[in-house]
Amino acid sequence: MSVSCATTCAALERRLIERVGAAGARIHLGRSRNDQVLTALRLYLREVLAQLAGGARAGAAALETLAAREPGTALPGYTHLQQAMPSSVPLWAGGFASELRDDAAGLEAVGRRLEKSPLGSAAGYGTPGLPIDREATRAALGFAAVHEPVTAVQLSRGKAEAQLLFEITLLLQDLARFACDVLLYATQEFSFVKLPAAFTTGSSIMPQKRNPDLFELVRGRSATAQACLLEALAVCAKLPSGYHRDLQLLKAPLFRGIDLALETLAILPPAIGALEFNREAIRLDPAIHAAEEANRLVLAEGIPFREAYRRVAAKLKGETP
Amino acid sequence: MSVSCATTCAALERRLIERVGAAGARIHLGRSRNDQVLTALRLYLREVLAQLAGGARAGAAALETLAAREPGTALPGYTHLQQAMPSSVPLWAGGFASELRDDAAGLEAVGRRLEKSPLGSAAGYGTPGLPIDREATRAALGFAAVHEPVTAVQLSRGKAEAQLLFEITLLLQDLARFACDVLLYATQEFSFVKLPAAFTTGSSIMPQKRNPDLFELVRGRSATAQACLLEALAVCAKLPSGYHRDLQLLKAPLFRGIDLALETLAILPPAIGALEFNREAIRLDPAIHAAEEANRLVLAEGIPFREAYRRVAAKLKGETP
Amino acid sequence: MSVSCATTCAALERRLIERVGAAGARIHLGRSRNDQVLTALRLYLREVLAQLAGGARAGAAALETLAAREPGTALPGYTHLQQAMPSSVPLWAGGFASELRDDAAGLEAVGRRLEKSPLGSAAGYGTPGLPIDREATRAALGFAAVHEPVTAVQLSRGKAEAQLLFEITLLLQDLARFACDVLLYATQEFSFVKLPAAFTTGSSIMPQKRNPDLFELVRGRSATAQACLLEALAVCAKLPSGYHRDLQLLKAPLFRGIDLALETLAILPPAIGALEFNREAIRLDPAIHAAEEANRLVLAEGIPFREAYRRVAAKLKGETP
Amino acid sequence: MSVSCATTCAALERRLIERVGAAGARIHLGRSRNDQVLTALRLYLREVLAQLAGGARAGAAALETLAAREPGTALPGYTHLQQAMPSSVPLWAGGFASELRDDAAGLEAVGRRLEKSPLGSAAGYGTPGLPIDREATRAALGFAAVHEPVTAVQLSRGKAEAQLLFEITLLLQDLARFACDVLLYATQEFSFVKLPAAFTTGSSIMPQKRNPDLFELVRGRSATAQACLLEALAVCAKLPSGYHRDLQLLKAPLFRGIDLALETLAILPPAIGALEFNREAIRLDPAIHAAEEANRLVLAEGIPFREAYRRVAAKLKGETP
Repeated sequence: MSVSCATTCAALERRLIERVGAAGARIHLGRSRNDQVLTALRLYLREVLAQLAGGARAGAAALETLAAREPGTALPGYTHLQQAMPSSVPLWAGGFASELRDDAAGLEAVGRRLEKSPLGSAAGYGTPGLPIDREATRAALGFAAVHEPVTAVQLSRGKAEAQLLFEITLLLQDLARFACDVLLYATQEFSFVKLPAAFTTGSSIMPQKRNPDLFELVRGRSATAQACLLEALAVCAKLPSGYHRDLQLLKAPLFRGIDLALETLAILPPAIGALEFNREAIRLDPAIHAAEEANRLVLAEGIPFREAYRRVAAKLKGETP
Repeated sequence: MSVSCATTCAALERRLIERVGAAGARIHLGRSRNDQVLTALRLYLREVLAQLAGGARAGAAALETLAAREPGTALPGYTHLQQAMPSSVPLWAGGFASELRDDAAGLEAVGRRLEKSPLGSAAGYGTPGLPIDREATRAALGFAAVHEPVTAVQLSRGKAEAQLLFEITLLLQDLARFACDVLLYATQEFSFVKLPAAFTTGSSIMPQKRNPDLFELVRGRSATAQACLLEALAVCAKLPSGYHRDLQLLKAPLFRGIDLALETLAILPPAIGALEFNREAIRLDPAIHAAEEANRLVLAEGIPFREAYRRVAAKLKGETP
Repeated sequence: MSVSCATTCAALERRLIERVGAAGARIHLGRSRNDQVLTALRLYLREVLAQLAGGARAGAAALETLAAREPGTALPGYTHLQQAMPSSVPLWAGGFASELRDDAAGLEAVGRRLEKSPLGSAAGYGTPGLPIDREATRAALGFAAVHEPVTAVQLSRGKAEAQLLFEITLLLQDLARFACDVLLYATQEFSFVKLPAAFTTGSSIMPQKRNPDLFELVRGRSATAQACLLEALAVCAKLPSGYHRDLQLLKAPLFRGIDLALETLAILPPAIGALEFNREAIRLDPAIHAAEEANRLVLAEGIPFREAYRRVAAKLKGETP
Repeated sequence: MSVSCATTCAALERRLIERVGAAGARIHLGRSRNDQVLTALRLYLREVLAQLAGGARAGAAALETLAAREPGTALPGYTHLQQAMPSSVPLWAGGFASELRDDAAGLEAVGRRLEKSPLGSAAGYGTPGLPIDREATRAALGFAAVHEPVTAVQLSRGKAEAQLLFEITLLLQDLARFACDVLLYATQEFSFVKLPAAFTTGSSIMPQKRNPDLFELVRGRSATAQACLLEALAVCAKLPSGYHRDLQLLKAPLFRGIDLALETLAILPPAIGALEFNREAIRLDPAIHAAEEANRLVLAEGIPFREAYRRVAAKLKGETP
């Protein structure tokens, strides 16, 4: 890749010379592939952040639309996967929407590590002998500051990439947790939701099956995101300072992680939109109101909560001897 | 631990009743261990962030002091571990100082995920039947906002912890890269630095040895930080929504990672302060000025860089036939 | 720790001199902490492997006892978490028992990396000037071979440790998958199993709750095992050859991983033994027999499977228009 | 992919019918994509193991050839990256050769997890209603045993894959450590080896540079191997029993890891063969013989090692006051 990069640079230069004459040969001055590639990457990642944050917010909006569509649909609220307290579709979907908005903000915060202009740091030690104006290129490209000193530039390689992959991992883990709920609610035993045919597949030997592949892939992809993050961190680990060819290996997990997140976010809103709740199948355990009942006892009788708790517990035991 | 936590709560309550009478029994109302523990954690992590960021900045300051102490000490600048361009102790130390300041800012940015008050979300579904004032506790504890909806609170578990461990990993990876340079410079072959006796150990069979254990441990600890991060992410992965006992396992990697970072930061400034450069042993390859020479040729003769590069390369070959 | 190790060695030597006189001072010859520590570790790990494999087989036996106790209890067999084909408690428990026996064999296979005697490699370059008989200590300690050449010994550090942690991870991931099934079967919606009171905890605000903490911790611990493995790999990554102090950091994840596995295996048989199946609550979807029906059609009518599949599918659709 | 797999199966079946008539339609009976895909994978991985082990042994052989070519070339032996004891090219290369042979054995040991025939387990619950002869297909395909019970088959998914990726990680970490040594020895400061032009690249701005990209990529790829392993483990983590679409995500890290290892092994022997040692530049610190001298003192004067150590240490200090 380094070779092909050098070849590309040389080709660009020849083309430029053909068009503008000898002045084209000036392009190869006061810069190195090291600072150019990093500058291009930072500009590209700025756009990626906006796309990803937008995608996460679109997912949140789809969940809020679902909540608005099912304002009165009750759901059990679970702790330890046991029915615990009354919940509802708006509370369930709203919780995930809130976390997706947190993920969007987390993605945007990666921008802090993209604010500095690497141009003019060349191979990592500046351009001795050349009066380069780093401030001019910084302003032209919209960076907030010149990355100083020049030796910091190559040391920073991989940090923005890793932070982006970290935030992608949080995002995909949130989506995976949502997918886990949907997969649970879609079992015959729960039957809380019906998955739309467009988002399921059939079986080659079991004619009755509809498989929720989409949500399984969303769950599984959180593992891939984690691996992309680890790869980016491990590539940079324990390198002496200065550029090393190892750093080129950052690109594969970076682009893989970005594509993974963008594809997953793209499929999410229609899949959420197509979820149908079987209201009649959602059954709340009567005991789910025990804490609420104890709370009301406290207010009504002015007794401490532990006392109210004991009374409700005794009553529950009496009911199911 | 859950049992002992419950036991602790009950003990606190008894003690309170002894002191203030029956009103003490009111404490166990409108809350759950889930929101209490998380509130305490967020308050604690705020302080930790400040300590860690302070430690990273103290490390940067120690590097800047080193740079000021050796203003004119030249160093080769390396790319691919090959001498590439002239550098210096101020450029070398300054690069790391800049990245440590970036890490400090990264650590502080974790605060965004600690801004919301969990109190009143109880076990994750609020306190039905009780008119709790979540705004009052939010204000009293200095949170920026109430964490809403209540179902988002347990979904957010592990995200701030993981972000903190991520930033600790970046910090320790930066320190590990610094340690790698020091270990390299301290070899007999480089002999750029002399390690102070206080920061080295001896050998049980080789009387001549002084071992740079401190810097090796700094390098090695970046691996531990990475593992703490992975553990926090993996504990939360693929959990359905709501509280699960698994989340308690977040604490071990969180505290391990924090202690690791604080201990490492504490030892850093004295160790940096004790580094001594052997100025006479630092030799720059004469060819290290080739790029600079080519740059000057461009300016002097108005030729394109590629042409200047070819001339300097030919001259270098002629010198070492 | 290196210091305390040196201190311990010196203390042992003084004690020996007190007991056997001047000859005690001979102990500190022809060896280094590097080969001694590694030898002790290999001898220790041999025993650990046997304990862990025994624990995994005890888990398998507990599952087989459960299967024998519920020979005729039907269970739905799931693919994609959807009811797919008829299964049973013996098939369900037997699948996990088979994998635990595979894990036991995997753990024992780590022994291959513990077969060579490090003694006499000293700090990694042998004992020049001393006619050491490495074969004698190899035979006395029951190693299969002398680890040769001496330089391989320190290069091998971390590999047996990592393989053991890898096999512990596979074991704990198998147990985590078993725990996931139990947690699912213990929901009110499935109600396939009843968890014994001794292996559940209560709630501080919801008097009706019984929480399956034990199985949640088994699930969560698979994350810790994974992190121990990663830490061991990352500590060794990218180290030049020869001993480095970093390698001491291998011990924490190694011992943490071993303790985690042993504790988890110890609690497993009684927890499995206490599982109770609610036979009357286990309901198989009538369509679960569709593949079997299609198979029978093939045999009865000599038609291809695809044709039989089409007929059964049509019949299922006709039943639920 | 599942869809295209189904499409492929249907296409194969049509083609078969065209060739052999109605009997071709019999192919789609008594099997599922789940057991077919896994069977094909196990057969494929058997071959991969042989290729990889062969490649690791070829690397070892190349190192042994290098050792034979430089029988008398001394090298410092390092601990803590400090010169410690005398070593040599044969000891250095021989240590890595020994570890590569250990890696080859480790790769072959993965075969134990490929020995069982999945055929006839179908979707994970067998083929009720069909008298399938699993023993016949087992024998025909050369498996050692039928994988029993059928429910174990899908539970075993990912375990052989992860073990292969684990052994690939150990292999690539060994190669990375070798690369780290080479990169160190190739610095201007060490100058122990000269890298052949065919395995280095030039710089676009520094005409004097020859960059050891190949060995940097070998070092960096150990990070990718680690990530592939983690991804395979994380995909399977916490899945309830039975097939899930997530498992399809195992293939990407598996094939990526295999390709990475095969490509790296292919380039290794020529790169090792082209290493040239600068014998005159390799300088051993005179103090490197201190342990040997102490050993000889023990033998000559019958004194304990600690006493000999003290004398040699005093003499060394006297020499360098």
